[in-house]
Amino acid sequence: MIMDRIRREDLKSKIKTADEASMFIKDGMTIATSGFTPSGYPKAVPLALAKRAEGGEKLNITVITGASVGDELDGALSRAGVMTRRYPYQTNKASRNAINEGKIMYQDMHLSHAVQFMNYGFLGKIDVALVEALAITEEGGIIPTTSVGISPQAIENADVVIVEINTSQPMGLEGMHDIYITENPPNRKPIPILNTGDRIGTPYMPCDPEKIVAIVECDIKDKVRPLGPIDEDSKKISGHIIEFLEHEVKMGRLPKNLLPLQSGVGSVANAVLGGLLDSKFENLTCYTEVIQDSMFDLIDAGKVIVASGTSLTPSEEGLKRLYANIDHYAKHCILRPMEISNNPEVARRLGVIAMNTAIEFDIYGHVNSTNIMGSRIMNGIGGSGDFTRNAYLSMFTTVSTAKGGDISSIVPFVSHVDHTEHDVEVVVTEQGLADLRNTSPTERAKKIIDNCAHPDYRPILKDYFQRAMKGKFKHEPHIMDEALSMHARFMEKGTMKIK
Amino acid sequence: MIMDRIRREDLKSKIKTADEASMFIKDGMTIATSGFTPSGYPKAVPLALAKRAEGGEKLNITVITGASVGDELDGALSRAGVMTRRYPYQTNKASRNAINEGKIMYQDMHLSHAVQFMNYGFLGKIDVALVEALAITEEGGIIPTTSVGISPQAIENADVVIVEINTSQPMGLEGMHDIYITENPPNRKPIPILNTGDRIGTPYMPCDPEKIVAIVECDIKDKVRPLGPIDEDSKKISGHIIEFLEHEVKMGRLPKNLLPLQSGVGSVANAVLGGLLDSKFENLTCYTEVIQDSMFDLIDAGKVIVASGTSLTPSEEGLKRLYANIDHYAKHCILRPMEISNNPEVARRLGVIAMNTAIEFDIYGHVNSTNIMGSRIMNGIGGSGDFTRNAYLSMFTTVSTAKGGDISSIVPFVSHVDHTEHDVEVVVTEQGLADLRNTSPTERAKKIIDNCAHPDYRPILKDYFQRAMKGKFKHEPHIMDEALSMHARFMEKGTMKIK
Repeated sequence: MIMDRIRREDLKSKIKTADEASMFIKDGMTIATSGFTPSGYPKAVPLALAKRAEGGEKLNITVITGASVGDELDGALSRAGVMTRRYPYQTNKASRNAINEGKIMYQDMHLSHAVQFMNYGFLGKIDVALVEALAITEEGGIIPTTSVGISPQAIENADVVIVEINTSQPMGLEGMHDIYITENPPNRKPIPILNTGDRIGTPYMPCDPEKIVAIVECDIKDKVRPLGPIDEDSKKISGHIIEFLEHEVKMGRLPKNLLPLQSGVGSVANAVLGGLLDSKFENLTCYTEVIQDSMFDLIDAGKVIVASGTSLTPSEEGLKRLYANIDHYAKHCILRPMEISNNPEVARRLGVIAMNTAIEFDIYGHVNSTNIMGSRIMNGIGGSGDFTRNAYLSMFTTVSTAKGGDISSIVPFVSHVDHTEHDVEVVVTEQGLADLRNTSPTERAKKIIDNCAHPDYRPILKDYFQRAMKGKFKHEPHIMDEALSMHARFMEKGTMKIK
Repeated sequence: MIMDRIRREDLKSKIKTADEASMFIKDGMTIATSGFTPSGYPKAVPLALAKRAEGGEKLNITVITGASVGDELDGALSRAGVMTRRYPYQTNKASRNAINEGKIMYQDMHLSHAVQFMNYGFLGKIDVALVEALAITEEGGIIPTTSVGISPQAIENADVVIVEINTSQPMGLEGMHDIYITENPPNRKPIPILNTGDRIGTPYMPCDPEKIVAIVECDIKDKVRPLGPIDEDSKKISGHIIEFLEHEVKMGRLPKNLLPLQSGVGSVANAVLGGLLDSKFENLTCYTEVIQDSMFDLIDAGKVIVASGTSLTPSEEGLKRLYANIDHYAKHCILRPMEISNNPEVARRLGVIAMNTAIEFDIYGHVNSTNIMGSRIMNGIGGSGDFTRNAYLSMFTTVSTAKGGDISSIVPFVSHVDHTEHDVEVVVTEQGLADLRNTSPTERAKKIIDNCAHPDYRPILKDYFQRAMKGKFKHEPHIMDEALSMHARFMEKGTMKIK
């Protein structure tokens, strides 16, 4: 079967086992891999690498990916202690734990920075590119699978390339990709995307065949993640957003079919998009990172005409549905390199409506997307900053409380800032929505406390704000030794409530 | 004299006094004005407006500018209580005080957002555009003076236009401007700038002559600000940066003539650029906001071949020098709309080296550019975020202490975050430079404390970091009830030192 997928004859001699291929990866090396969300990441070689370490071999490897990847890569290499440095994003339990234990040095980066910093040499030498592929063309071009991520530039920058041809990935994916690679400054040109659906590149990633040192067959499926059921809070959040968007259309500030939607990853984001199914919006487009289940619903309903992303990220049911109707979805979906899906230039030109998830936000509109109680990494900033900063309109959503009500997601001062007051235009919880455009910080505080905070926490937040307003400086009033006191209280007493 | 500058006959009938022209501005209106730094802002009409308020008339006005403007606008309208809302940036003492007293509602915005949000209708209806001009062309085009800022879009969006023709501005400025206006999404096109010096527009701002309701003669000169002398600390900071840039060239990560430089406003920024005069770098270009005195030195020395900005911001001596040699400098300088000078698309494409000034930064690389001790606005974020986020390489500079040593500019947790750890690649003080690329937060903390903090504060910062590292979560370790304790100590005792 793999033979059919290697269309260039002279490359067939490069077929190796995963164990053999893994030997090209040595202690101290940096590997750049395919994968974005648990889609299209290499699986067989990382498992072989972990096995070597478990057998006693000393292996310290730096891993650069598109974004999060599946357990066969992040999980296996974290548990085996192989992965000691990691960029630019992760969501794996084992790697998260190792980062929080100080065992993995993790730099949490804007996804739009990751590729160009690799190109600039800022991330050091790339020894090996390890990419999952659907097939290799007659010219030696590598066809990605369910995601593109950093693969085109990993191949370009690496000394050698290992290809995992995944035979569980259906050939129907061929043609869905649009690979366009930017030059480095001072030779960079405009990216010629004018509309969400524009195709500007090739359906494969160029690769010098001489660089391919091993081709490995693999049939392990993407470890897709289940999506949580759409709960009441998510429905309320989605409802507030749709009401707001309808109002913006009515006021003439948005076209009737809106502007390209960007939506973060996960259950709440999926629910927000899903809410559009029952809305009156039509002819929608999505310029985003990940194409999740609700996008398939919107495509089936004829609501979304084109979805551009860097990854297909369905649930297990969604994956079955995708594979069963791949020709249908291929007509409406484009997979681009992360450098393009997350590009500030394109996001700003198209004017995306960015909808991302916050861990917490504060009364002045700063958002924490990454660290719980300041110190503990959750996942990372991912592409949220790329879209938020360059959006036509940027929104953040969160449920107003966590931990059964003991944590308020609205605080006086967020314990980690990922998006500043200068970047956030709308915040939404199940309680309501606060439109922060055209407001001073103190005007924002009133709106956020009244509209978004949980009623249990409104008096605490109001009390802080009112006492801060008694200070001498009233632009963005804070009390320095109390600004983080709700977090400190939670750390000490297990609740942010005052008992 | 003004008659020569109105080249379109039918507009000569619109000449009015400043008092008469000011009557088009009524209580509750929003005015959008020219001006960026104390250059090219309207003067006569704002003074007339202030006089009306001082005479007892009730006037509450929202003022939108490019960036900071001179005292005849921000100062006079703040003191008269006329300006009650202000976007997107200011540096005037009277307006700063009024903001901190809660009398002016100030939204501190990315300059790259200000114009498009005005276009989108997010800043409300623009009643009057009030712009300083050099002259009006036969077609009715308005030629800006020493800055462009938001003027082209102010004219486009406003119901009516008031022009102040400033006869103190020399006609030699004509031809220095390059006016290009972007469309709104979904019709926006790529901005066709491929090199710093590319001219893509017209030398005047288009304007429907019907919209011009008044033309006022004015001869008040720009209230330029003195530049501080280049002190020892600034020289050291500049030295660290040049050494670092030389190293980057040597490592092949930067071309020999670097990439377009962007430098913030003010004395330290001026000193940093000035340091390049004695460096071996040649054929430099600058893609920045403001063209300050040191740029003239670099042009005269043949070091800088082209400088693109939105404003000429010299000192008084610099202004004399500019006016005396205007044909010479006009060959090397281009003034663009703020929407273009600060555009993320262009900054990223050209790969600017961004050098901006911090109020403070923290041990993990977050930067405060705006609020002293969290609550007190200094100036605003200005364009620092536009360049930092989209730079090839982003740097922040500050002197390691302030207030005679009682404030450390390096703290455990900044009291306001304007640039996050995801955006900041290099931090520099007179003590030294920390290269934060390729580092986890804990690696950054060690570098920043060792290289950048003042020796008086290193033990305090190390002690905090070491105790935070004893906590359970070691990704970006913080102690929630101590993170802002250096600020709290300063507020209480007037020093961050432990006595």
